[in-house]
Amino acid sequence: MLIVNTGNGKGKTTAAIGQVIRALGHGQKVCLIQLFKGKDFYGEQLILKKLKNLEFRSFAPKHPYCFGNKGHEAAKTECLKALKFVKKLAKGRKIYDLVVLDEFNIALREGYIKLKVLLEILKELSLKSNVIITGRCAPRLLISSADLVTEMKEVKHPFNKGIRAEKGIEF
Amino acid sequence: MLIVNTGNGKGKTTAAIGQVIRALGHGQKVCLIQLFKGKDFYGEQLILKKLKNLEFRSFAPKHPYCFGNKGHEAAKTECLKALKFVKKLAKGRKIYDLVVLDEFNIALREGYIKLKVLLEILKELSLKSNVIITGRCAPRLLISSADLVTEMKEVKHPFNKGIRAEKGIEF
Repeated sequence: MLIVNTGNGKGKTTAAIGQVIRALGHGQKVCLIQLFKGKDFYGEQLILKKLKNLEFRSFAPKHPYCFGNKGHEAAKTECLKALKFVKKLAKGRKIYDLVVLDEFNIALREGYIKLKVLLEILKELSLKSNVIITGRCAPRLLISSADLVTEMKEVKHPFNKGIRAEKGIEF
Repeated sequence: MLIVNTGNGKGKTTAAIGQVIRALGHGQKVCLIQLFKGKDFYGEQLILKKLKNLEFRSFAPKHPYCFGNKGHEAAKTECLKALKFVKKLAKGRKIYDLVVLDEFNIALREGYIKLKVLLEILKELSLKSNVIITGRCAPRLLISSADLVTEMKEVKHPFNKGIRAEKGIEF
């Protein structure tokens, strides 16, 4: 099954993390692949890396917008590494019940990875594993290929009142 | 801060669970109060109850729709117990950085708990703890009192094709 969490609201990644915990609770094997999120910044990373049956990979740890054009090149190289890793999962025997591709929609939006290539990989991978892709701006073709799509829609957010990101909530 | 996850789509509870994991990762103390969800049915429950710094309470474990009118009465009694517990948290000294009230919107919708009473409790509680309320059909007054509201909007769901709930995804 192919699942997409998209939209401009909060909850795309946290819902995927909730799914990881749900799957692990049933003794399932999970692979979480994060883009642009560093390794020890988000609170969940500190818990997840201790859990049994979870393979946790982080690529392009620095968000490209922090590093100008040079950052874009480095991020693209890292995203292609991530894609190669996902392709290996798609081609090999089934290892994971759930594979989470966190923020891959952003890598698509930035042109770091090609939609056509990702869709081909997903077609194969989602036959053996449940796959969740997160990130705003999911492309229409990805949505039409998916089985379950949720739009996390911002109704109200404190950022709009100038309130800064809070530890334990935003990261 | 008062946070609401609502809407007809998937991800309201899982996003709250993701927030629990995020907060715990930063060493924060968390209280998760679930309604209508049993104790060992959802995969996440099996992981969560092993985690340090998390107080996990389950009320009205049987969903009222499974038990006709008698079920409604029993569920209401349990929801009022849950509300009493939340009120105690609101009145006492701060213990938890995050309090999750899972499916409390359903208890409101069913008339098991009164919106006015809950809002008064939340006003006090959200001054000391971040509070997340989940469940579809969040009432307008709750939304206007909240700081951060996300609507999880169903774009596509396999249930609509007659596909049944899958272990590790829906529970």
